[in-house]
Amino acid sequence: MLSTTPRTTLGREKHRGSNDRNDLYEVLDTGLFCHLGVVVDGHPMVVPTGYGRLGETLYLHGSTGARSLRAGNGAEVCVTVTHVDGIVLARSIFHHSVNYRSAIIYGHARLLTDPEERLTGLRVLSEQLAPGQWDYVRKPSPKELAATAVLALSLEEASVKMRRGGPMDEEDDYALPVWAGVLPLVTSWGEPVPDPALPEGIDVPVHIRGRE
Amino acid sequence: MLSTTPRTTLGREKHRGSNDRNDLYEVLDTGLFCHLGVVVDGHPMVVPTGYGRLGETLYLHGSTGARSLRAGNGAEVCVTVTHVDGIVLARSIFHHSVNYRSAIIYGHARLLTDPEERLTGLRVLSEQLAPGQWDYVRKPSPKELAATAVLALSLEEASVKMRRGGPMDEEDDYALPVWAGVLPLVTSWGEPVPDPALPEGIDVPVHIRGRE
Repeated sequence: MLSTTPRTTLGREKHRGSNDRNDLYEVLDTGLFCHLGVVVDGHPMVVPTGYGRLGETLYLHGSTGARSLRAGNGAEVCVTVTHVDGIVLARSIFHHSVNYRSAIIYGHARLLTDPEERLTGLRVLSEQLAPGQWDYVRKPSPKELAATAVLALSLEEASVKMRRGGPMDEEDDYALPVWAGVLPLVTSWGEPVPDPALPEGIDVPVHIRGRE
Repeated sequence: MLSTTPRTTLGREKHRGSNDRNDLYEVLDTGLFCHLGVVVDGHPMVVPTGYGRLGETLYLHGSTGARSLRAGNGAEVCVTVTHVDGIVLARSIFHHSVNYRSAIIYGHARLLTDPEERLTGLRVLSEQLAPGQWDYVRKPSPKELAATAVLALSLEEASVKMRRGGPMDEEDDYALPVWAGVLPLVTSWGEPVPDPALPEGIDVPVHIRGRE
């Protein structure tokens, strides 16, 4: 079950909420970027960044130089991951909507300092972005490891919201001669584009070509 | 030209920044959802929401009941729109990256109260989400108009960041027998799914079927 603190309890559209942890994992595990919100000098700042999940921990990626992550060290953050699945086309403008799945996590982000934990975090981040690459390419050198900031955030306080299905119109509007339904948004992997510097004879590995 | 306030001046990866307003418009005009960041009781909150652009104004959508938008009325917000275009697969974990385009806008969001301006904002939001629907379906009744909160945000303080192209590897790593390149992420519209309640004989209009 997901927590129900005041801010993760949905104030409206309760039917769109889920308190199933598996829904949280599904939303997080199928994303590539999150939006990391921090408060900097009293002002909100939202930056896109890479992330990955291991159990009940979310790892967040960023350079040690990025302002938002410096502010995020020990500070409160809000991390949001959103998938847009389709546009809901109703018979009135008012009932137009979006089919989506989103997760919001609140907590204090901890900057990893232990080399072992940092390596774990980087592996998780890497596997989320590009599964199979960790074992395929050169791993981080100590210098590279030191140059990468990784934050850890507990999934303790989280909420999930989603909308699925077709439009819900006003009774009277069903008689209108208007098409209604869902226009799905489909995300897929394109054909891999080789680096021009690649020598001949190196094929695209299955974990890249066959990515789902 | 885009503004160069301290927080829109990139602290790192300056080569990924753009100060061309057309890049800002392109990123905003091709998105469906933004991530709206606000500070609520000192805490960061990031929610996904619909938006649309008209000239130098960004309109943001939300119910009057949503906490984040109540906080956003006159309060400072940060709005971020991100497109992920592909995964950059390098010869080392360290140089893995993402091809993306993102826009970040800072400002004070103004809750629209004038009915005329609110109608304009709704039309812009609607056309961003579902172009052509405004003239095709039933328009908002006065009651519906009153039930929808629309915020306006100036594009005055904004920054754009993007990455394109293949991996940049360490000199020594080019000799590794490792495939490198870009795995593109492609977003496209699927086949329209009709509402089961739709009577026979209503075809999918061209503005939906032919959406680019």
